Amino acid sequence: MKAHIITIGDEILIGQIVDTNSAYISKALNAIGISVYQISSVQDDKAHILESFAFAKANSDIIIITGGLGPTKDDITKSTFCEFFEDQLVFNQEVFDHVTYLFKKYVKQPLLEANKTQALVPSKATILTNRFGTAPGMWMEKDGKVFVSMPGVPYEMKALMEEAVLPRLQEKFHLPYILHKTLLTYGMGESAIAERIEIFENELPKEIKLAYLPSLGRVRLRLSTMGAFKQEVDTAMAVQLQKLEVLVEDIFVGYEESGSLEMLIGQALVDRNKTLSIAESCTGGSIVQRFTANAGASRYLAGSTVTYATRSKTEVLGVDESLIKKHSVVSAEVAEAMAVQVKKIYNTDYAISTTGNAGPTKGDSDAAVGTVYIGIATPEGSTAHLFMMGNHRERVIGKTVNKALELLHEEILKN
Amino acid sequence: MKAHIITIGDEILIGQIVDTNSAYISKALNAIGISVYQISSVQDDKAHILESFAFAKANSDIIIITGGLGPTKDDITKSTFCEFFEDQLVFNQEVFDHVTYLFKKYVKQPLLEANKTQALVPSKATILTNRFGTAPGMWMEKDGKVFVSMPGVPYEMKALMEEAVLPRLQEKFHLPYILHKTLLTYGMGESAIAERIEIFENELPKEIKLAYLPSLGRVRLRLSTMGAFKQEVDTAMAVQLQKLEVLVEDIFVGYEESGSLEMLIGQALVDRNKTLSIAESCTGGSIVQRFTANAGASRYLAGSTVTYATRSKTEVLGVDESLIKKHSVVSAEVAEAMAVQVKKIYNTDYAISTTGNAGPTKGDSDAAVGTVYIGIATPEGSTAHLFMMGNHRERVIGKTVNKALELLHEEILKN
Repeated sequence: MKAHIITIGDEILIGQIVDTNSAYISKALNAIGISVYQISSVQDDKAHILESFAFAKANSDIIIITGGLGPTKDDITKSTFCEFFEDQLVFNQEVFDHVTYLFKKYVKQPLLEANKTQALVPSKATILTNRFGTAPGMWMEKDGKVFVSMPGVPYEMKALMEEAVLPRLQEKFHLPYILHKTLLTYGMGESAIAERIEIFENELPKEIKLAYLPSLGRVRLRLSTMGAFKQEVDTAMAVQLQKLEVLVEDIFVGYEESGSLEMLIGQALVDRNKTLSIAESCTGGSIVQRFTANAGASRYLAGSTVTYATRSKTEVLGVDESLIKKHSVVSAEVAEAMAVQVKKIYNTDYAISTTGNAGPTKGDSDAAVGTVYIGIATPEGSTAHLFMMGNHRERVIGKTVNKALELLHEEILKN
Repeated sequence: MKAHIITIGDEILIGQIVDTNSAYISKALNAIGISVYQISSVQDDKAHILESFAFAKANSDIIIITGGLGPTKDDITKSTFCEFFEDQLVFNQEVFDHVTYLFKKYVKQPLLEANKTQALVPSKATILTNRFGTAPGMWMEKDGKVFVSMPGVPYEMKALMEEAVLPRLQEKFHLPYILHKTLLTYGMGESAIAERIEIFENELPKEIKLAYLPSLGRVRLRLSTMGAFKQEVDTAMAVQLQKLEVLVEDIFVGYEESGSLEMLIGQALVDRNKTLSIAESCTGGSIVQRFTANAGASRYLAGSTVTYATRSKTEVLGVDESLIKKHSVVSAEVAEAMAVQVKKIYNTDYAISTTGNAGPTKGDSDAAVGTVYIGIATPEGSTAHLFMMGNHRERVIGKTVNKALELLHEEILKN
């Protein structure tokens, strides 16, 4: 079964928003055995939408559409749907009641004319209730192909996918089992890994695909396969993973499917009944934000102090002013002192810190753009490391976050 | 001139990464007068790539391709390019020298066989030097259509776009002037705004398009137009903006094109020579991260204290323990005390704070999921506000960040 995802909306094509819906939908479809053939983002234009429907129908079995379902005049997906299916809009009491209920509960204002039009749906459509919004999901079939239309608001779309679309697809189709396993590695470049595992790659059975995914100082290695029987697929994959793990043993950290590195760290801390605090300068809150994005971080994370101004490092963190004067604010000594101080202030077992110059210009120190020190304090002691992270602000921050997490992970695993 | 963006790579179609390149490219093309007709993400598969090339060539003038140029076996864009253009790969000394130089400078290891293949390029291609990586950009023409191929690594692609692709497109084509203006509003829903500006919308000249972009408690209103002469386009737009601004005066904050709300706040603080500190609980670093993502935040931002654990609020921020016992950690009193304390500790003019329950389960307090208090301390005094942000963790955090910024902005503008 192949799917084609179509996202409708000029805001994507003028670069005003990043299309995150497609990544979510792709992942969700893959998980139930449907591969995505293509993702197309098209304009709020009837002729263009019709063209993309026809193209998608020709090369895929399932067409998932998001966007263009709002109550305003620029939303034309529904009328285009009618044209494609030679259908017409009819009033749906169930949708109307739901819209009325949402307005009464949340907006606390009488229903507007524009909202009433949301109860008009194509007569041939099966309505999928949108718990979080006024625009319903719609399921239509034509020549054995399934078309699903959902609103573009991410959390409305996600709830519709989980509660209605995925279960219906599983019920309708006999789906294969798709399996991806992604090895997280750090410390070695893409080409060097490729050379090291060349024989392994050449000998891979052709139903298992290998991909290299380099990003911010890390390379992820993904093996992908599919088949009719879960157990066979799992076994075939396990055989290859066993070989590959041995080959990259020194740079292998874990599987992405088991969670991100920050989740691995969180689990390692919880398992050891240890706690963490963070002192961030050049990363400006990006490290703590990685942890708090996951529910349950309060089990091990005490908090973080972002000391962006130099003065805050002395006044808030209590880093010795003479240390900054002697070594400059971007130095191993200050990074180490920040880690030691934040560990003390938050009373935790581990602490990490960053100080550096992310650019684009020099800040409160003479350090070259890209100079970063990462400090670590553990139950055993403290230390700091110097890194040159290049001269691209966003990348300096991203690479520093990754490197700090890697150093911390290594330290925790020592105990 | 219409463009079609093609991103190549299975990692997009299985949802492993979000395609941020397309948003960047779309925005950059729009800025020089090229509209994007469609974005297509396709598999690492020769037949599929060829099909997408043909489809894009049929409906667009400029085809921008990213991905599939790495040194490993899963990268097939270059060979597919040769097939489409009936061309062959030839050795390019200039690219080879550049790859050798990069390896000597950064990798400090001898060149690997895989890297040498990066010097093989289609004979008909004009080579665009990739300053940041080993895979060159390539520019080819066929039947008056331009094809550009770039690596998928975002910062390599961005440098190629800015330094080579955009100037070349401007040189080759006589491009129109495209103008987007996006009004940031908050405090009113999409349907209510639509009803209020209905007459304005109906009377808009047909060359100016209006779009509603609702997100996390805000609605952005975008007007888009284009034309041959900049001055005419600017004047026609200004006439409509003047009308629209009056209609939404009470909910209008500024133009997105002049910068995000956090950038407006930063500028307002710098103009007034004032400083800011932040105390975050439920937002976990997301507020400070919004500010530090922009270079120059150190001119007004002292720092932020993320007190995730309840204990940190007393031990690190110095919030009175009896206050927490009496009112609970999620309360107006604690939010206000957090703002007052962090303002004092960082010695700033303004401070904002958040405490609440983002879910999915109840934390250190009995407050229902979605309950959030935002505290504000100004040179004049302090206060706190209660909000119910729904029951979706990511949205609770996102809406709280937005609302905190809005409240802060209003306070700063009072002076």
